[in-house]
Amino acid sequence: MMTSTLDPTEQVVQLALTSWESRNSALTEFMNKYNDAAYMQEVSPGRNRAIYLFGHLIAANDALFPLFGFGKRQYPELEQIFSKNPDKAVENLPSIADLKKAWESINKQLSGTFKAMTAEEWIDRHTAVSEEDFQKEPHRNKLNALLGRTNHLSYHLGQLNLLSVN
Amino acid sequence: MMTSTLDPTEQVVQLALTSWESRNSALTEFMNKYNDAAYMQEVSPGRNRAIYLFGHLIAANDALFPLFGFGKRQYPELEQIFSKNPDKAVENLPSIADLKKAWESINKQLSGTFKAMTAEEWIDRHTAVSEEDFQKEPHRNKLNALLGRTNHLSYHLGQLNLLSVN
Repeated sequence: MMTSTLDPTEQVVQLALTSWESRNSALTEFMNKYNDAAYMQEVSPGRNRAIYLFGHLIAANDALFPLFGFGKRQYPELEQIFSKNPDKAVENLPSIADLKKAWESINKQLSGTFKAMTAEEWIDRHTAVSEEDFQKEPHRNKLNALLGRTNHLSYHLGQLNLLSVN
Repeated sequence: MMTSTLDPTEQVVQLALTSWESRNSALTEFMNKYNDAAYMQEVSPGRNRAIYLFGHLIAANDALFPLFGFGKRQYPELEQIFSKNPDKAVENLPSIADLKKAWESINKQLSGTFKAMTAEEWIDRHTAVSEEDFQKEPHRNKLNALLGRTNHLSYHLGQLNLLSVN
């Protein structure tokens, strides 16, 4: 059997990272599928519009900057519109083109930073848990947050794929 | 900092396992929420019924027995109804009670087996990849399949949660 150049922990971290990136790519593909007007439709009658779910997922990735201690959100205004408020509460939404730019910029920066992280850094705490709590709950680390974020993406991708475009 | 009793690879494997279990629990909770008749409704007009998605996710977990080399599917008949066929193609479906029993039985067996696996076993190949291909693509291991299965669960949970119950 070929010996991998990565140690087992790095190998497992790599799987989680690839999983996150593949779900990001799936969302990118979905957002490039229709014309912009289609994204103003609800994914199911009375439910969130596709544009809202897109903005919501951008805000969720953007939250990883402060959560991982990398700095501030890049697009703090998106949190107000797509995370703190429900769909239709805010009248003027950014354009799909601007949202796509934000999505691309955030993911490019995150991907670059993630790739440079060691396995040790991945299993270290994130900023939402104190040093003291982390000693009792060592699973509250960055990798766990990434797995959660990946599943959050999958959850809303399932909903987005119900969009009926005429 | 407290030293974990698990080595880093085991710690990371544990995160993935907990993530899979938490998504299974979320589905169990969802399936205990309404009366059985509610699950005959479509999650969105013209889309899959909740019972179909439930059966589909049971069949997906059941497929882990042969995929991981543990043996045969426990409920092979579910694959035909909920995986090889689309919703509404098969007229007579198992009852919700029987599906819940299958779900519980499969997950109990899988969880027990998973907990006994070493980190080394997790990063070893699954049966859908040959020894030869695995040497070129070492990411095609059991842990990766588990991450994929967890996201598959999240994807359909997102859809199930759109169910409107009157």
